[in-house]
This record gives sequence, C-alpha cells and structure tokens, in this order.
Amino acid sequence: MQPSGILETVIYAQDLDAIERFYADVLGMQPFSKLAGRQLFYRCGDQVLLIFNPGATTQPLPAAALPVPPHGALGHGHVCFKASAREINAWREQLQAKGVAIEADFIWPASGGRSIYFRDPGGNCLEFAEPKIWGLT
Amino acid sequence: MQPSGILETVIYAQDLDAIERFYADVLGMQPFSKLAGRQLFYRCGDQVLLIFNPGATTQPLPAAALPVPPHGALGHGHVCFKASAREINAWREQLQAKGVAIEADFIWPASGGRSIYFRDPGGNCLEFAEPKIWGLT
Repeated sequence: MQPSGILETVIYAQDLDAIERFYADVLGMQPFSKLAGRQLFYRCGDQVLLIFNPGATTQPLPAAALPVPPHGALGHGHVCFKASAREINAWREQLQAKGVAIEADFIWPASGGRSIYFRDPGGNCLEFAEPKIWGLT
Repeated sequence: MQPSGILETVIYAQDLDAIERFYADVLGMQPFSKLAGRQLFYRCGDQVLLIFNPGATTQPLPAAALPVPPHGALGHGHVCFKASAREINAWREQLQAKGVAIEADFIWPASGGRSIYFRDPGGNCLEFAEPKIWGLT
C-alpha cells in the first residue's frame, strides 16, 4: 500500500494580497476560495494548490472549528508546474512581458527536458518543466 | 494560459534518514533517487514528491553545477495524499499498527469527505483525504 497521488500541494507566503495579484496577472490563476489574510485556494489540473499565510495557520483554530492541525513554514518553498516545450516558450514570453525575472533556464542533460525558474512575491521558487525530466509524459 | 498541473510537490525536513525510514515503513514509499543529507525523491501518481534538507538547498550550488536556484523553508509543511474512503480506513489501521498518532480524523460537512492527519518525523502535517472534499473524483 502506498499513496496513489497528491491531492493538495501547499506553499506559504505572508502577503497574500501580493500573491493573489501575481498568480492572477502572471500565471492566469484565479482562486476558487479565499480567506483574507489566511489562505488562497487554486485548482491546478486534478488537484489543488493551497497558499497559506503561516502567521495564521501556525495558530490553533478556535475550539468550535474543525480540528485541522496547525502547520506553516517560513522561507522559500518550491513548486514546479508541468508544461510542454512549446508552453515553456510561451511562459517565458509571458514572464518577460510581465517584468518577472527568469532566474534560470536550462536543459537537464540526462533527459533533454527544459526547466525555467522564477519567484513569486513571497520568494517561493516557481518552475515550469517538461514532465520528461522525471521520465513522465 | 494557466498551468495545466503540478509536476513537483516539495516539502522540507532536516533529518532525511528519519524521513526515509518513515516514508518507507509507514507509507510504503521508496525513493527513486536520493543524495545523502540533501534530498529524497519519490514518485507519487503522475508526479513527484521531493523532500529536501533546507540546510543544503538554501546554499548556492557550485559554479560548475546546473543553475538550480536555492530554496528551502523551516517549519511544518503540509501535503495531502488522495485516498478513497476504503483506503483511508486501511491507512488509519496502518498508522495505528506503526504507532503513528492520528492528529485529526473528521468529515468535512460541505462535501461529506473524510480527512485524517498525522505528522512525519520532521513535523510536516500529512493528510489522506477523499478527492471529493475539493469536488474532485
């Protein structure tokens, strides 16, 4: 028995207003649910991307709430979105048009797959990569 | 244009030996790649789960290496694995048999879907949940 897949990918950021603007303007992502100062929830493929403010989620919830455990991290998280070679070209153009710095852009020697990296306003390391870098399609 | 899916979900932990034992013994997950003290890479469904030691990944790489940007977070991350109602019952039994505390176990009122929560040795908040908690199948 082992997990069959991931349902929720989570990163953290403190200024969720800046995050919401960036993900909408640069990545075309609109939250399907949000709670000001605490969380932004996005759909992405067959799962969700949850962005939490650790200043809120490390605090225990009120006794009347569902017993969701506290969690939260400080620093620079990382998430990689899947993209085809053609899509990576389009994302690179989009990032440049929006004034977002491309921190790295290279081909992994073993797979021939390409990755491009940039930052969200919380400093999280975001990436677009071809699934073949992991032997996936 | 928006991201079509997530390719890499990332969490952090400092004692990767303890993490590797826990993910193997409790979750049945074997890394397909690892680098002692730095990283453990797992396949999970159609993507990968990467567990990094932030003490290593926040440091710049040698100039000769590929220019993978530094990242890393301290605290307690969160990841949720998808599971059916039947699988959640089996995971609960497995966690209890392995002596892992169930931190929470409840039904979300809006969806009727169940979540169970526990911790990995790094304090990361792990969850099994039914996809229907997000309106997914």
